[in-house]
Amino acid sequence: MRRLLLSNDDGVHAPGLRALYEALLPYGRLRVVAPDRDRSGASNSLTLDRPLALTDRSNGFYSVDGTPADCVYLGVNGVWEERPDLVISGINHGGNLGDDVLYSGTVAAAMEGRNLGMSAIAMSLVGRRYFETAGRVAASLVGAAESLSLPPRSLLNVNVPDRPWSEIRGFKVTRLGYRGPASKPLQVQDPRGQDRYWIAPVSRNADDGPDTDFAAIEAGFVSITPLQTDLTRHAALHDVQGWLDALT
Amino acid sequence: MRRLLLSNDDGVHAPGLRALYEALLPYGRLRVVAPDRDRSGASNSLTLDRPLALTDRSNGFYSVDGTPADCVYLGVNGVWEERPDLVISGINHGGNLGDDVLYSGTVAAAMEGRNLGMSAIAMSLVGRRYFETAGRVAASLVGAAESLSLPPRSLLNVNVPDRPWSEIRGFKVTRLGYRGPASKPLQVQDPRGQDRYWIAPVSRNADDGPDTDFAAIEAGFVSITPLQTDLTRHAALHDVQGWLDALT
Amino acid sequence: MRRLLLSNDDGVHAPGLRALYEALLPYGRLRVVAPDRDRSGASNSLTLDRPLALTDRSNGFYSVDGTPADCVYLGVNGVWEERPDLVISGINHGGNLGDDVLYSGTVAAAMEGRNLGMSAIAMSLVGRRYFETAGRVAASLVGAAESLSLPPRSLLNVNVPDRPWSEIRGFKVTRLGYRGPASKPLQVQDPRGQDRYWIAPVSRNADDGPDTDFAAIEAGFVSITPLQTDLTRHAALHDVQGWLDALT
Amino acid sequence: MRRLLLSNDDGVHAPGLRALYEALLPYGRLRVVAPDRDRSGASNSLTLDRPLALTDRSNGFYSVDGTPADCVYLGVNGVWEERPDLVISGINHGGNLGDDVLYSGTVAAAMEGRNLGMSAIAMSLVGRRYFETAGRVAASLVGAAESLSLPPRSLLNVNVPDRPWSEIRGFKVTRLGYRGPASKPLQVQDPRGQDRYWIAPVSRNADDGPDTDFAAIEAGFVSITPLQTDLTRHAALHDVQGWLDALT
Repeated sequence: MRRLLLSNDDGVHAPGLRALYEALLPYGRLRVVAPDRDRSGASNSLTLDRPLALTDRSNGFYSVDGTPADCVYLGVNGVWEERPDLVISGINHGGNLGDDVLYSGTVAAAMEGRNLGMSAIAMSLVGRRYFETAGRVAASLVGAAESLSLPPRSLLNVNVPDRPWSEIRGFKVTRLGYRGPASKPLQVQDPRGQDRYWIAPVSRNADDGPDTDFAAIEAGFVSITPLQTDLTRHAALHDVQGWLDALT
Repeated sequence: MRRLLLSNDDGVHAPGLRALYEALLPYGRLRVVAPDRDRSGASNSLTLDRPLALTDRSNGFYSVDGTPADCVYLGVNGVWEERPDLVISGINHGGNLGDDVLYSGTVAAAMEGRNLGMSAIAMSLVGRRYFETAGRVAASLVGAAESLSLPPRSLLNVNVPDRPWSEIRGFKVTRLGYRGPASKPLQVQDPRGQDRYWIAPVSRNADDGPDTDFAAIEAGFVSITPLQTDLTRHAALHDVQGWLDALT
Repeated sequence: MRRLLLSNDDGVHAPGLRALYEALLPYGRLRVVAPDRDRSGASNSLTLDRPLALTDRSNGFYSVDGTPADCVYLGVNGVWEERPDLVISGINHGGNLGDDVLYSGTVAAAMEGRNLGMSAIAMSLVGRRYFETAGRVAASLVGAAESLSLPPRSLLNVNVPDRPWSEIRGFKVTRLGYRGPASKPLQVQDPRGQDRYWIAPVSRNADDGPDTDFAAIEAGFVSITPLQTDLTRHAALHDVQGWLDALT
Repeated sequence: MRRLLLSNDDGVHAPGLRALYEALLPYGRLRVVAPDRDRSGASNSLTLDRPLALTDRSNGFYSVDGTPADCVYLGVNGVWEERPDLVISGINHGGNLGDDVLYSGTVAAAMEGRNLGMSAIAMSLVGRRYFETAGRVAASLVGAAESLSLPPRSLLNVNVPDRPWSEIRGFKVTRLGYRGPASKPLQVQDPRGQDRYWIAPVSRNADDGPDTDFAAIEAGFVSITPLQTDLTRHAALHDVQGWLDALT
């Protein structure tokens, strides 16, 4: 039976993680290693300045006083004698669409699994209600990953519309859209009179064209985006070389 | 005169930031917005669950009780009436090579600048000694970015060997190498007898081929890697579609 | 029916809090406001540099992304239309004896209740096993506080031996002992070669005389110590005045 | 020459700490061990769940990635071969009056020194302007502590009016006043629509009678309050015993 490592960024007590666990129970031996509290927005942070505590919460659930990436690292290297076959992260409370993936701890947990040599899936529900729908999506993908052959070291970013399973219109392979830059911060005063600045939400999407994850979700489809972790902009290597030649 | 926004992840008091500031003084109007303490490894984290304090430390230096990405967001949206022309992050104390860029706060600060619509440069010294060398590299790139035309919304990851300027062999355009997965964690006991786990360093590089940043640094060259922030693995869209068709 | 506010420092998911809740259910209307994660050792810290999130976890349990003192402040000022009659903190996983009370978040939660004008009880189990015993102690004290008259704004620090209820030898009113100074730190190296220092545990008690809380626990009694929050050393006012007169 | 250990809670870069250092230079051999960032309000927190990094910033200044109490513990046990003779904490940016002392990191640093067996002084400026005045007060107390005999393991909480030295009316030995309970929290909404709660400042003092620290400062005097760290409410031992006898 396959070994499935589950994690998330909403913390070990999050309902989305519980829903993922229950949906995947029939599909392998499960271990859960998740942050001891909400670490949304942790991105790929790894904790290097202190050692981590790994707490056994029984029933195969472990918590770590660290980030989602810390959890996957310890889940792969510390909890089992053997490495997991697949890492599944989520179900995130809220979507991870477009440039969200750069900031998301859910996606980071999957990326860490992929960096450590496994295929990985990041699962997000674009809302907070129909976790069961997202659980069924996760089960169908994980089941298929077993019977079909997912290319090795695949990294899939999956977003699920927040609606009943019967209202899901299908699955779409998408590219990431782009939310665009956030608005100006919201300036407030604390009760002692000091200025503070809240980072503002993005007002409207800069790119949500028909082949994007935004468009798929909007139309009621599950969005599946293959991700890479190589940030080299290969197409620009030549241009930068030209620019550098002129410089020197 | 151009407006240059400087940030880093080692904190507002770091010598590398001071060296960058001094090297760039002749090249524009400078503003520094940096974390109030060491935030190395913060990756792209943005602080969304609390408002941020922006402290004016005089002489154009501001500190923020947040992450490198927070600093750039506030630097772009809060400190100036006009947007900066260029974001420069660093000089990091230590290299940001290969898959380091996924975890680095220095690179994240530059990425945030790029996401907000500007060109950006991440500067790292592969060591902790010759900040002056890295300062000269920064000055030559920023000077060139003015006279030549850096493509809009460029994002450059620059690493500098830790040696005197006279021993720098030149500049190379590179792709990112790959450190490979970290080793097993170092298990220790705290003084109260509880197990703890340190994330281990990477033992040896998995990909440091001749065109990588690793190889350039090893040979004594400044390494310049153009980065992208679109994580879509476009080449895999077709494969994943095939896999999905078989699934459904 | 009385309104009982419960909190702790081990976090909203801690078994000791659950045991306290169940033991006190018959004694009043309960509200639980506790940290979202383990905040042991937080002492009296209040969070003043950011606003707090209060999350309703259903069944009268709320969590706060802050310290134990934050929780009691919000529990008194935000959760109910009326103020609670009594604040009970715990059941702490481990004892709070002697000078522990200066560092303990459990005691701090009770102190905050007392500072806000209520009587308060800090409950700790000197171990991690017989929470049920400590629950029965809490129930008997809270029940008595109703029928008898606990002096207004009392603050009691209660420690319970980690043994079955049948083996508890009785209740003792005690003064705080004194653990004495901690030993030298344990010096370790992190995996990157940097020195780090763990604060060491205390080797042996400096004052555990017969009337102390240490002695009561050692002998199998529940220890009850009345605490004050006025730190003025009234007995020294005269001496310091003499010293000051000589100075000037 | 005496060994003086300096710390604070505003962080190693704070102007108040610098002013204290300069004022005390003639009075002994100085070592500074202070938090790497602002840790105001840390109270007596000690860091037990991770090892601490102690960074030598040259010139006798060290920083610690921990709390004020952590700093004093490491300053006493790690930086010198011999123990310091006196611990001085501050100069805090703002007063520590009345029940502030329960929450203050400045006072906690002094308390930690006293718990480790030394006399200790907590210095606070009731404002942010005349640090030099507070420096002169510190110098006169430390100078006197040498020539006269401060009782062993004394703990003094010193507050200085924010005015020029020439306008200081003298020194007063005081007891702590009492600010009283904080007002209701300030409820705000974050930019994503979620409720948040700021802890409110105290509206007016509940006890600022003529012999209190509040009154001394108001009248332009330096306030000196001897503190204790034994929280036992000795006067209540008898009453609680009576209450307990009725209970059982």
